[in-house]
Amino acid sequence: MPMVKLRAASAPLLIAALCVWSAAALAQADPLPSWNDGKSKHVILDFVRKVTQEGGRDFVPLDQRIAAFDNDGTLWAEQPVYFQLQFALDEIKRLAAQNPALKGKEPYRSVLARDLKGLSANGNKGLMQAMAVTHSGITTDEFAVLVRNWLASARHPTKRAYDEMVYQPQLELLAFLRANGFKTFIVSGGGVEFMRVFAEKAYGIPPEQVVGSSGSVKYRLSATGKPELYKEAKVEFIDDGPGKPVGINRFIGRRPILAFGNSDGDLQMLQYTTGGEGARLALIIHHTDAAREWAYDRKSQIGKLDKALDEAATKGWTIVDMKTDWKTIFPPGR
Amino acid sequence: MPMVKLRAASAPLLIAALCVWSAAALAQADPLPSWNDGKSKHVILDFVRKVTQEGGRDFVPLDQRIAAFDNDGTLWAEQPVYFQLQFALDEIKRLAAQNPALKGKEPYRSVLARDLKGLSANGNKGLMQAMAVTHSGITTDEFAVLVRNWLASARHPTKRAYDEMVYQPQLELLAFLRANGFKTFIVSGGGVEFMRVFAEKAYGIPPEQVVGSSGSVKYRLSATGKPELYKEAKVEFIDDGPGKPVGINRFIGRRPILAFGNSDGDLQMLQYTTGGEGARLALIIHHTDAAREWAYDRKSQIGKLDKALDEAATKGWTIVDMKTDWKTIFPPGR
Repeated sequence: MPMVKLRAASAPLLIAALCVWSAAALAQADPLPSWNDGKSKHVILDFVRKVTQEGGRDFVPLDQRIAAFDNDGTLWAEQPVYFQLQFALDEIKRLAAQNPALKGKEPYRSVLARDLKGLSANGNKGLMQAMAVTHSGITTDEFAVLVRNWLASARHPTKRAYDEMVYQPQLELLAFLRANGFKTFIVSGGGVEFMRVFAEKAYGIPPEQVVGSSGSVKYRLSATGKPELYKEAKVEFIDDGPGKPVGINRFIGRRPILAFGNSDGDLQMLQYTTGGEGARLALIIHHTDAAREWAYDRKSQIGKLDKALDEAATKGWTIVDMKTDWKTIFPPGR
Repeated sequence: MPMVKLRAASAPLLIAALCVWSAAALAQADPLPSWNDGKSKHVILDFVRKVTQEGGRDFVPLDQRIAAFDNDGTLWAEQPVYFQLQFALDEIKRLAAQNPALKGKEPYRSVLARDLKGLSANGNKGLMQAMAVTHSGITTDEFAVLVRNWLASARHPTKRAYDEMVYQPQLELLAFLRANGFKTFIVSGGGVEFMRVFAEKAYGIPPEQVVGSSGSVKYRLSATGKPELYKEAKVEFIDDGPGKPVGINRFIGRRPILAFGNSDGDLQMLQYTTGGEGARLALIIHHTDAAREWAYDRKSQIGKLDKALDEAATKGWTIVDMKTDWKTIFPPGR
């Protein structure tokens, strides 16, 4: 027993030693090699330096180093359609192939006819319907398997797997923050059960540090008496706009000192984060790179960035310009 | 910059080194000194040994070592009334003293007259009202200050501060689990914003690892433009009974491998925990010690333990008998 205890307890030691080693390696090299040497990079490095400087005016204790990242358009791409919506559309096709009787019914008919206009006819009703039929009526465990299978087989128009559409500079930033004692959270309008399937592998963020929108879930015993959680077709929480500070309060219970977003849906999270005492950092990715990624902002249907862009200018938040600030966009060698 | 990075990264190293040191110390001594040498203690030690034994049949990887603890009656006492309800009653008195116009109104009148029967007249309506008026109409930050002030000044009938009514054997168990790589969570029917005020200091459990019931919260800008979260008088989520597995899924996103409760409100959490694959441990505290604590179970208004006691017998869950299993109840020397 004593040996076992020692062995178990030395795992964190090993991890910490590796952190120190990698922090030392980073220090010698550059902790953010995919970030060009410009204002954004310096703002980040300065902020991390000052909040970790013991005895300094801006020092922040370890337990308060909370960083909140939006997901769609901030940690991974969101064009030409939100990836979770693409999952829903692909699921619709899979379900219709399995059960041809569905093919004449909505939302199946419009999806199969690639009739996105038909789907959007009544506002977003058709799209909501497509989301609902693919995100409910099954258990949480079954849903996770569907997402995992989809990620393994589906390909983005750029030919990459969807979980390879993550931003390399952000992976470096997440690792750099964690090496400096930050706890990194996702705070996204995306579905929490969708994101939790890949967040740990893609970003090193465990399920309990993923905050997102959710549908109602019901506890029940299966026909064979097995406890399970059943996903109902009812939206329970929208973690977007003013919902983001509410979600942060509900799940994290502490105000972040750093928040990173890319759209008006992040505005209130950025306000809330910077509204606290002491050193705070608010960052917004501006999608300006039509050649390597996409260029969109004030008039985009997806990831609209308008009010937050104005407020960033007024309040001195950091605008990360994708075209000039990022040396690379996606992870190399995949 | 390099030096700062190294210093920041060495904090986890220091903590890990202390963990190893304390784990080594525990190994030489006894990791659970307040637990009598009986079946319950051995079940716990055996379980932790087997899930941490690398290469063993029951080995559980670090990231899946999730432990869920109920709070009232499991981590701290819950008699003669739930402490959060006592907080509400004390707040009612404080508010009425500040604003005498309230004294003739319910729920103030009944609380001031110590008329608990009057308060409970329509089911629990009066008590719910007392909870509502003390848990809403203020910001989350203001509420945290009220709880902190109350904890600092209020005293339990036993003369202890309320946050000293924690169970010493459970503090040792939490520390032992964490030293073995477990992430410890509270999953309680209590209010999440109430518990988060003391959970870190009392149990070493940070706010983001506290799952509880919650009221609706609204994001807004104050008159001076300061972002704040305003507590509304509307129940949003009841983390009790079948709500516990739902809360676990919502906040943690992984099924625990160990759950510890003390009442029928924990039944579904225990079912859900033991319903997963691999090694699982379900424990229930049976309050059997009228001399040192309280003795109650099937017929108690508070912490009723009836169905879960029967199911524990059928399913072989571990019943911790407070009288015989615990050497001490509360922390010494306070």
